[in-house]
Amino acid sequence: MSLDTVLRRIDAEMPAATERLLELLRIPSISTDPAYKKDCDAAADWLVADLASIGVKAEKRATPGHPMVVGHVEGDGPHVLFYGHYDVQPVDPLDLWHSDPFAPALEDTPAGKVIRGRGASDDKGQLMTFVEACRAWQAEHGRLPCKITFFFEGEEESGSPSLVPFMEENADELRSDVALICDTGLFQSKTPAIITQLRGLLGEELTIKAADKDLHSGMFGGVAMNPIRVLTKIIAGLHDANGRVTLPGFYDGVADLPEEVAQQWQGLAFDHKAFLGDVGLSEPAGEIGRTPLEMIWSQPTCEVNGIWGGYTGEGFKTVLPAEASAKISFRLVSDQDPHKIREAFRAYVSAQLPADCTVEFKGHGASRASTMSTDHAAFEQARQALSDEWPEAAAFAGCGGSIPIAGHFKRILDTDAMLIGFARDDDQIHSPNEKYDLESFHKGIRSWARILDAMTRS
Amino acid sequence: MSLDTVLRRIDAEMPAATERLLELLRIPSISTDPAYKKDCDAAADWLVADLASIGVKAEKRATPGHPMVVGHVEGDGPHVLFYGHYDVQPVDPLDLWHSDPFAPALEDTPAGKVIRGRGASDDKGQLMTFVEACRAWQAEHGRLPCKITFFFEGEEESGSPSLVPFMEENADELRSDVALICDTGLFQSKTPAIITQLRGLLGEELTIKAADKDLHSGMFGGVAMNPIRVLTKIIAGLHDANGRVTLPGFYDGVADLPEEVAQQWQGLAFDHKAFLGDVGLSEPAGEIGRTPLEMIWSQPTCEVNGIWGGYTGEGFKTVLPAEASAKISFRLVSDQDPHKIREAFRAYVSAQLPADCTVEFKGHGASRASTMSTDHAAFEQARQALSDEWPEAAAFAGCGGSIPIAGHFKRILDTDAMLIGFARDDDQIHSPNEKYDLESFHKGIRSWARILDAMTRS
Repeated sequence: MSLDTVLRRIDAEMPAATERLLELLRIPSISTDPAYKKDCDAAADWLVADLASIGVKAEKRATPGHPMVVGHVEGDGPHVLFYGHYDVQPVDPLDLWHSDPFAPALEDTPAGKVIRGRGASDDKGQLMTFVEACRAWQAEHGRLPCKITFFFEGEEESGSPSLVPFMEENADELRSDVALICDTGLFQSKTPAIITQLRGLLGEELTIKAADKDLHSGMFGGVAMNPIRVLTKIIAGLHDANGRVTLPGFYDGVADLPEEVAQQWQGLAFDHKAFLGDVGLSEPAGEIGRTPLEMIWSQPTCEVNGIWGGYTGEGFKTVLPAEASAKISFRLVSDQDPHKIREAFRAYVSAQLPADCTVEFKGHGASRASTMSTDHAAFEQARQALSDEWPEAAAFAGCGGSIPIAGHFKRILDTDAMLIGFARDDDQIHSPNEKYDLESFHKGIRSWARILDAMTRS
Repeated sequence: MSLDTVLRRIDAEMPAATERLLELLRIPSISTDPAYKKDCDAAADWLVADLASIGVKAEKRATPGHPMVVGHVEGDGPHVLFYGHYDVQPVDPLDLWHSDPFAPALEDTPAGKVIRGRGASDDKGQLMTFVEACRAWQAEHGRLPCKITFFFEGEEESGSPSLVPFMEENADELRSDVALICDTGLFQSKTPAIITQLRGLLGEELTIKAADKDLHSGMFGGVAMNPIRVLTKIIAGLHDANGRVTLPGFYDGVADLPEEVAQQWQGLAFDHKAFLGDVGLSEPAGEIGRTPLEMIWSQPTCEVNGIWGGYTGEGFKTVLPAEASAKISFRLVSDQDPHKIREAFRAYVSAQLPADCTVEFKGHGASRASTMSTDHAAFEQARQALSDEWPEAAAFAGCGGSIPIAGHFKRILDTDAMLIGFARDDDQIHSPNEKYDLESFHKGIRSWARILDAMTRS
């Protein structure tokens, strides 16, 4: 049977596939730092050449930022688009790395072999799982299994400023039957998962100002309003005693979890004690009466991501600061409208200001939650294919994070997206000593071969 | 009359007195930075030599930190001790200075001539007002008016770590009938004032910790406790809706303002609109029902001087931080006990901690309020002398700040202290472009001559 020969070839080609990934990892394609602009370009060139080597007509496509790589092969059956990103996070603090982040290597660890280096997991290693599956298929069959569009971005780690305009301008070219996105992980590091819902994200920064300069707390303390006091009162009022967010209308559009999804999640037997215990916690801290998975996947949140004001150095300075600031984010679910919530937040803050205080707001993105319809046959085919590859059956899972691209495929291209990835919780993405398990890479490649087979066999 | 000749000499000697002050100001005696240790030593040497030039037997006295300067002259009448400090604040941010902070100069401004440079007002200029008064007296009369002890410190701007041990070890040598401290200002920049009450100061730093590492707010938001949320709730609970501090027992020991003092303060016709207006404020923000002067001088406060946690840089990072911190200070009045309030604060915080959160405290000083008895004849004599020199009659005033040295003189030496100074609100002490009005310097010198005359004439 054709799948078996592809899988055997994948096994046999692992050393060469790993060597190719190491080559890509050596390119320091840090998108957020202009000093690495040439390297981002080089990573795009590398991918164009690598796609050409498996018969894909690919090219670098200019944007106002780093280039996209777009490649097409024709074929029968469904038209599949595969998305990944070739840019990586900065590497600081560099002194916490045990080896050069851009001198990647295969490393033995007590938990097995890993590929160590920046981007190994996020997202070069994941991206290459799909390319290597295609390579093996091409080698065995002299063609790819179906019509495939390859779509690689170089700005994912710096906010994807060019993505939506590019998708809108090239909608006809990019529209497909289903989009595959490889930038997520295994559920609890072991269960293969297809993410079917993602939370949205609304970011707000606010600065409360009072006096027009920093004051001495001896001279003015007691008679001049302290903006830190105003800010802390505002933040403290955002949650009630049960942990619910108090903004008027905040829960408008939050749907009850469908019984079917609730049952799927219950079947996952999420070990929240281990999940929290790994980071030194013991008690779920969310809204009273919700299960931990509900709290993370299907309930909205309000979190303060940063706060600052006054003197924060060594020792003590009796300053009464002129201003105080915070960065606050909301994770959104179902049909919550980020723009309405932004308005409600700003109105709430403004109503709390005492005399002499003003506020300045800065918005940092506003994306809705995404809920994928699993009606497309590809979802069930992929779930079966993943279950065949891994020791545990694959799950339809939620994700507490926010990956706006899934929503863009739906909104701009009317294409359903399947988020499938093989990262593990300890991959240290965005942190020093990033790694990707060789098993994630190997079984990831095999998983895509099985998924492509399942989608095109029928 | 002898005072007149001294005053005339002071007027005539102003150019030379100013040149001497500029010389002292050129020595960058920043006490908090070890790089300036030699300069602190040089400033002490300069003072020893200058005192010798007016017949005072002075010497540098070693401490574990920067040296004290102690000098004595014998004489009839009361034994007076004069305290000042020769160390200065750091000068950063240096780029906000319009000239080199240690290249002081006389400068014309629309409001009159000023001496510009670090330490011009705090406290080298103020310290030299007394020394120059003594110099003129010595020149006219061949002796000083009474027995005087000069006591100069070099660590006031870095917390005075050696002061109390030195005073305790040398109590017999330093004990006097009255202590004069020149480190305060004119009331509302124009009314000469003798400070008769100072607030105490209790400093507390706290860090709330939850998870043992920073978390991703997508992965953990909603299920892991956010220490910024805990900290802001704790801080928001420290004041009630009327602006009163909520800690149990906080107001124990806070005395009603004596009718006599209340009347003195009413007589000052404090222009709180101008006081607040100068810093961009319009409304007194303290406890409802108190006058602004009461809020600053006779009511205790709780202020957050600094707060920090999570991501505070440019842009946005959806981190759920492992910890959050704040620096909080309490200004204390009357008989409030800083140690009991520290205990009450720590108990309040600890009782607010949810599951999985811990707190670490760091104490930053704990000094009681000082109320000077004005029974000593010197207080009335000094008030009359100041009223003779300045256009406005002198006042017994309060001070919202905390100058622990006044309390040390009472407690360690049983000596009443008179705080008299000539700084103005716009002197920019501790800030870039510090200055001292030439008028403050000139009338300050004349004031001390009058005060010494009044204290020794009778």
